[in-house]
Amino acid sequence: MTETLADTMEALDLTKKPTVDGEEDFVDPWNVVGSSVKGIDYEKLIKRFGCTRIDSALIERFEKVTGKPAHHLLKRGVFFSHRDLHTILTLHEQGKPFYLYTGRGPSSSSIHMGHLIPFVFTKYLQEVFNVPLVIQLTDDEKYLWKDLTLEETQKLAVENAKDIIALGFDVEKTFIFSDFTFIGQCPEFYQNMIRIQKRVTVNQIKGNFGFGDSDCIGKISFPATQAAPAFSNSFPFIFGNRKDIPCLIPCAIDQDTYFRMTRDVAPRLGCPKPALIHSTFFPALQGAQTKMSASDANSSIFLTDTPKALKTKVNKYAFSGGQTSVEEHRRLGGNCEVDISYKYLTFFLEDDARLEKIREDYTSGAMLTGEIKAELIAVLTPIVTSHQESRKKITDEIVKQFMTPRPMKCGL
Amino acid sequence: MTETLADTMEALDLTKKPTVDGEEDFVDPWNVVGSSVKGIDYEKLIKRFGCTRIDSALIERFEKVTGKPAHHLLKRGVFFSHRDLHTILTLHEQGKPFYLYTGRGPSSSSIHMGHLIPFVFTKYLQEVFNVPLVIQLTDDEKYLWKDLTLEETQKLAVENAKDIIALGFDVEKTFIFSDFTFIGQCPEFYQNMIRIQKRVTVNQIKGNFGFGDSDCIGKISFPATQAAPAFSNSFPFIFGNRKDIPCLIPCAIDQDTYFRMTRDVAPRLGCPKPALIHSTFFPALQGAQTKMSASDANSSIFLTDTPKALKTKVNKYAFSGGQTSVEEHRRLGGNCEVDISYKYLTFFLEDDARLEKIREDYTSGAMLTGEIKAELIAVLTPIVTSHQESRKKITDEIVKQFMTPRPMKCGL
Repeated sequence: MTETLADTMEALDLTKKPTVDGEEDFVDPWNVVGSSVKGIDYEKLIKRFGCTRIDSALIERFEKVTGKPAHHLLKRGVFFSHRDLHTILTLHEQGKPFYLYTGRGPSSSSIHMGHLIPFVFTKYLQEVFNVPLVIQLTDDEKYLWKDLTLEETQKLAVENAKDIIALGFDVEKTFIFSDFTFIGQCPEFYQNMIRIQKRVTVNQIKGNFGFGDSDCIGKISFPATQAAPAFSNSFPFIFGNRKDIPCLIPCAIDQDTYFRMTRDVAPRLGCPKPALIHSTFFPALQGAQTKMSASDANSSIFLTDTPKALKTKVNKYAFSGGQTSVEEHRRLGGNCEVDISYKYLTFFLEDDARLEKIREDYTSGAMLTGEIKAELIAVLTPIVTSHQESRKKITDEIVKQFMTPRPMKCGL
Repeated sequence: MTETLADTMEALDLTKKPTVDGEEDFVDPWNVVGSSVKGIDYEKLIKRFGCTRIDSALIERFEKVTGKPAHHLLKRGVFFSHRDLHTILTLHEQGKPFYLYTGRGPSSSSIHMGHLIPFVFTKYLQEVFNVPLVIQLTDDEKYLWKDLTLEETQKLAVENAKDIIALGFDVEKTFIFSDFTFIGQCPEFYQNMIRIQKRVTVNQIKGNFGFGDSDCIGKISFPATQAAPAFSNSFPFIFGNRKDIPCLIPCAIDQDTYFRMTRDVAPRLGCPKPALIHSTFFPALQGAQTKMSASDANSSIFLTDTPKALKTKVNKYAFSGGQTSVEEHRRLGGNCEVDISYKYLTFFLEDDARLEKIREDYTSGAMLTGEIKAELIAVLTPIVTSHQESRKKITDEIVKQFMTPRPMKCGL
């Protein structure tokens, strides 16, 4: 799993970088190359992938069925696309079981703000639906793709688990697992991996993921490992021997490649197709089209940043949609479509009225770039510091509880 | 794993059968096509694979180092080729640890005489060396390659385990495992699979095994699963965290493809290369060059055959090196090089003097085809009936003991 533009840029293999012809964005689980300063054209991606835009009618039904207000990430189009979300809502209406599945590729110990997005939204979904949640940490994927030892990726998985747990997931409803540990604890999971591997050809993988014959065989078979958690019988300690319990997968749109394959295989395993809810990518500080560099700590706000570092990064690096001088800005106004401070506020400022006021003022020129940056710093600082406080309390013992295969106490 | 000509012929995919140009035999783990009625030209195979013929000096050293007489399967050249066997003998001399690893692909519940060969010899090696033995039952391989359900292959693995245990393996020194069960019980084993998968490209697999892009991804990555047991840290309950304990693999020569790959990867994992001792193929009743059919029960003697069925099969189907009439036979003599009864006797008649007498008499014409067949029937019948007796005593509880991960009581 890679969930953010930061991750995907980081994973970008320059020796075979896809070219962008100026009209088409390139998006797969390892490459995201935008052709416009506004970022990726998500409307085109929806068409290309064959998924469905989340419209106001679906959000309305979501609120009606769940009896809860829609999350701001849903209302504001951060989670913008889906597959079969109506089916999941119908199951919820009927009191029938389903579960949530998401994940993360633990490629570095320092999680940044963008990494939080899918987990923040997943936590909301779990609270709304009261269903089990499984979180896959693909340490095996990161070992296969990166210049890391197996032991390093396992450590990173535990470090990342702490950040995830710090968001407040309920241990009675949440199972977090790393592939390197869990696959060797659950024969049924491995069996599903092989069931999937039997039903996908090398040709299909090459077509879907762009691998070639000089790639290692681990990469070729890994998609089955990411597909397996979408089938309920991969977790017998949660779902018994039932293979008919559907799941809903919140993830960034680039991961859709894995789950198109999973949905293709599902009926041949006698299992329901996983439903999906897709997010946009989280942009780099330097702008929605700019490449992030793994070695450049200034390209993102990390959850380990001090308030001072956070302030400096936003002030120094956050790409501005403002004008070149105060006079120009007052006259012409700022451009929220490319302003990174504004984009980040749409992710993290929950207050709709306040966000709309900022948009109006920045667009009109009443709010200056320094001022919108101050707004962002004021929103992010307490999130980061309180996360650091929460994370300190996550002991190895707590991690072990979350990562132990066990029954879940909800929905089933 | 497939160990015999029967298995490999059975696995033969006719849609892409390799062609034999009349001079070269074709041998890989799924295809064995001989170009001569005498069977495979093993000398050529040794050259092509780059292994070493077992000569009389090596057998002498084997007897000297172990203080035990060489097994008739070794003396008679059934186990005819090796890699690094000298290294293993040196370790034994020095009292340093190593282990044995062999396996079987459980594709059918009815084991035939040929399937016994590697296990009979492995049991002898274990007694001679007093070292741990791991036996891999590749139910996942058979599931990927054949039209069997996962549950069927798991059942076959247990049935095959019973036949193996019935040969008298010591439960305190022998760990039998099926991939579908064990990989989900041992994170270290899965971790080694991925370590190997990281170091082998699709190109290498295609070149070594002949797979193509229309094959499923499970086939492409399976070789790593057969390679993993060659590394001692795949079995932490036996070897702790030591990854430096070498293994010796007795197997049919067609399996060398897997272990050439394994030996190639080993140094990059900081592990010793596995040593090998290769057997020839066990010929079909109808002759060393004849294809066996899985659906044709008459192509082999099965361990479930009644004495009557055994007798009928040998008399009716065992390819004869004799002449067309008694008179001709007395005058010209029989040809032991192609006579299947004689070949089978070299596998199963332990008495060297008696075998030599039969060879002389059959070659001279003093012994008729009916008589050599009677000799074979007399040798095979007690083997089969006593195996049936032993197998009856193998309860599910005993199978469970052998298949439970646990420490071994020897050599370490």
